[in-house]
Amino acid sequence: MSRRSLLGMIGTVAGAAAMYSAMSTMGLAQPSDWKGRLNLQGDTKGTSVLILGGGLAGMTAAFELRNAGYQVKILEYREKAGGRCWTLRGGDTFTELGGFTQTVEFSEGNYINPGPWRIPSDHFAVLDYCKRFGVKLEPFIQVNYNAYLHNTEAFDGKPQRFKEISTDFRGHVAELLAKVVDQKALDADVTEQDAELLMAALKRYGALDDDHQYVKGEASSAFRGWSKPEGGGAGGKPEPSEPHPLSVILQSSMWRNLTAGDNLHMQSTIFQPVGGMDMVAKGFEAQVGDVITYNAKVIRIRHEGDKVTATWIPSNGEGPETVETADYCICTIPFSVLGQIDHDFSARMSGIIDNMYYESAFKVGLEFKRRFWEQDEHIYGGISYTNLPITLISYPSTNFFSDGPGVLLGAYPWGAYAYQWNALPAEERVAKAVEYGSQIHPQYNEEFLSGVAVGWHRVPWVLGCYGEWKDREADYMDATAMDGRTLMAGEHISYLPAWMEGAILSALDAVERLHATVTTA
Amino acid sequence: MSRRSLLGMIGTVAGAAAMYSAMSTMGLAQPSDWKGRLNLQGDTKGTSVLILGGGLAGMTAAFELRNAGYQVKILEYREKAGGRCWTLRGGDTFTELGGFTQTVEFSEGNYINPGPWRIPSDHFAVLDYCKRFGVKLEPFIQVNYNAYLHNTEAFDGKPQRFKEISTDFRGHVAELLAKVVDQKALDADVTEQDAELLMAALKRYGALDDDHQYVKGEASSAFRGWSKPEGGGAGGKPEPSEPHPLSVILQSSMWRNLTAGDNLHMQSTIFQPVGGMDMVAKGFEAQVGDVITYNAKVIRIRHEGDKVTATWIPSNGEGPETVETADYCICTIPFSVLGQIDHDFSARMSGIIDNMYYESAFKVGLEFKRRFWEQDEHIYGGISYTNLPITLISYPSTNFFSDGPGVLLGAYPWGAYAYQWNALPAEERVAKAVEYGSQIHPQYNEEFLSGVAVGWHRVPWVLGCYGEWKDREADYMDATAMDGRTLMAGEHISYLPAWMEGAILSALDAVERLHATVTTA
Repeated sequence: MSRRSLLGMIGTVAGAAAMYSAMSTMGLAQPSDWKGRLNLQGDTKGTSVLILGGGLAGMTAAFELRNAGYQVKILEYREKAGGRCWTLRGGDTFTELGGFTQTVEFSEGNYINPGPWRIPSDHFAVLDYCKRFGVKLEPFIQVNYNAYLHNTEAFDGKPQRFKEISTDFRGHVAELLAKVVDQKALDADVTEQDAELLMAALKRYGALDDDHQYVKGEASSAFRGWSKPEGGGAGGKPEPSEPHPLSVILQSSMWRNLTAGDNLHMQSTIFQPVGGMDMVAKGFEAQVGDVITYNAKVIRIRHEGDKVTATWIPSNGEGPETVETADYCICTIPFSVLGQIDHDFSARMSGIIDNMYYESAFKVGLEFKRRFWEQDEHIYGGISYTNLPITLISYPSTNFFSDGPGVLLGAYPWGAYAYQWNALPAEERVAKAVEYGSQIHPQYNEEFLSGVAVGWHRVPWVLGCYGEWKDREADYMDATAMDGRTLMAGEHISYLPAWMEGAILSALDAVERLHATVTTA
Repeated sequence: MSRRSLLGMIGTVAGAAAMYSAMSTMGLAQPSDWKGRLNLQGDTKGTSVLILGGGLAGMTAAFELRNAGYQVKILEYREKAGGRCWTLRGGDTFTELGGFTQTVEFSEGNYINPGPWRIPSDHFAVLDYCKRFGVKLEPFIQVNYNAYLHNTEAFDGKPQRFKEISTDFRGHVAELLAKVVDQKALDADVTEQDAELLMAALKRYGALDDDHQYVKGEASSAFRGWSKPEGGGAGGKPEPSEPHPLSVILQSSMWRNLTAGDNLHMQSTIFQPVGGMDMVAKGFEAQVGDVITYNAKVIRIRHEGDKVTATWIPSNGEGPETVETADYCICTIPFSVLGQIDHDFSARMSGIIDNMYYESAFKVGLEFKRRFWEQDEHIYGGISYTNLPITLISYPSTNFFSDGPGVLLGAYPWGAYAYQWNALPAEERVAKAVEYGSQIHPQYNEEFLSGVAVGWHRVPWVLGCYGEWKDREADYMDATAMDGRTLMAGEHISYLPAWMEGAILSALDAVERLHATVTTA
């Protein structure tokens, strides 16, 4: 029986949903690692679970465990839940390690997400919780062909439109390969029949002309843009634009950013919550806020007999110690912080905790009097990339065409650049981001209103952006194992580090394994 | 003086806007063919202008001419304005040539745009009128990496995710070229220094491994997707997926649709009006509806002395003839229709009118009980392409994640395929679109509710989709010239055929030239 007729039969007998499910099994659709909503059955025997950390992992665990019948409690260091799923708005304050405090001055409705800011459409767990908790999503614009690529050492320092560099690079690559195919230099790799198809494919792919050349003309201008755009009426005839030579593009390094939007996690369609990323946190918090103890700084974790205890003090350090006791613990505290807490995890786990380092990242939100990037430069959302220490500028994906002040992401460097920013005097970081950005958008100088800078290594409750393994192959499975009566969870306990999906999936996995332990005990 | 220091000086003296304007002049930014809002000065001498057709071109002309002081009147064949800028919603009826009438049964809030459905972000005139008239826009999703490419003759007829074919084709192309570069076979075209950069660029561009091979592994899976996706907790480790061989992709013809979203008019960011494309028409109509005579079928156009007259009858054919007289005429009636009207245009213009043929296009809107493409297949907006006569399926770019019925564009063929659809008995077209589409989405069979089909050659007031020139080089300029006292306008009088922008730009150009004629007479 053919695959098709089998599917047809399933469809007839069991309906479309069953048919689709069968198709998935046959490899047609790619399922996520998310296995669907948990449906935990079995006697939870009055078991209590203490959850350390009220970020997405902790709240996911609390939500699912309570649904299954467990007694749950969350200890959260901050005055609110969400962890790195965090949004800064006008009136918010942020005090970093070292004591520097910023008060955000953005106008009503404007915000910046210092942490996660995108929800890929294959992050099924996040999407499903958003759906369940009524978190409204809107498209996030990752790729904007009208945004810039910028390199201080190329094109006289002038930003180039993404569409031009992208079309030109692809065109030159296609032309070079077509030339080789035409010379039959690839006969060992490509059959004669395929070579003919490849020539046709390269012509279309690279916007080549009829001679398979990537040159100034209608074919290339239809992708890279015209020097005089297509118009209407008497003066409507367009004029083609001149492509950049391959050599110029190669030496500009701008090819480094051409496929950023093709990465699995950045591919269109991609979403953001309407109103700021912390709408996701608030969605969870509305469900489990009642089991969260806020402003609770865990200072000690102990396993004694068949109990686990966590001792906490008020986060401002002023107040008595409180001891919480439970049958199990799910610990979502970042290892960067956990390593500094007095705990009695096994030597193996302790070593893993201490071995994890936290990637550095830095973000600056800048508010301007008007959306000049839209009004002057016709850039609606998306990202401009630069070799300057700001690395990129991302334009808001919401409230397009609106008047009044707008906030953009004025810097998002990682690694070495991020350390440089952290080393700057705190007061100078925003000004520096404005100074760099003005090399791409000269309007910065005149239109700047205020900004806020977040260096993740200076965020007291994470001390970094996300967990990086020194040796994931060696350590990962041991880190996921029950240690005493504790399971670790969080983005660091996943193969999706830094993503909310990783945090949630790790929590779901911990919950399932904890439940299996309890019900089969 | 360097460009940069000159710009700096302009910025200091005259501010950011002037600086940006200077940058544009220097070639940094690409201006549109739209020259900005009209500001017509001078005595209009009580001149009257009769506008034939209340589509976007006609309404643009009316709006701008009245603002400048002209007496304007529009004759419109239909009961409402907008022309091809048209949206069908539940309760709407559409009677095509031949008398077949469809009543749309979509539920509240669902719609289909039979004509234009996208507003590119470089269509500045449309965007500016939307802004002025309060038409709210939202992102249109053109490219969705999770949508399908489908060919009945390839992959056993199974749809493939765009991300897989796109990554694989690029990867194989990069690998082949890298191999040639590595063999120094391109030394005549690429310098040694550039060759090194090109190798690095191809590695990144093509997701090649360290040996510049496009193979199963982390590099390729990070773009095309994993066979077991990255997850969290104990089972989080992903498994890479197996790329398709180049030969399979070449023979699948799926490469034909890889760069659809890279075309200038399809590039992200791209918009649609919230609620349907006719919100644009309604925006204009709110401005100039008072000068429109609806249900007026023009049957005769005459130039006599320094006047032009148009005679009309009620569109249903029942009623007396009415004669409108004006000093000038802007005629936006499609040439397909105009050629059948009794007119006295010059022999040259008459020849051009008769020589223009109208491209065929066909659209079907299908409503389903639920958004199975989102719920089952995680496709949020975007387009799936197929070699079936439906050509494509486009998923709604609005109300993502919503429950209840959803409407998708179930067919949008052009040319030969569109003629095939027109030749089908009218009653069978929707069912046929469902039948074809079910080969891509088997859920069609169970979830289908209702549909509406629009074959543009059967739309009485256009008789086609958009105007195609037999010889644009030879005829275009004469078509734009004042003929007697009439100027032609509409998408057909532009280098942006079928686009609203083309219609508006042609009208703006006609208005400017008419005004120049009047004020310098």
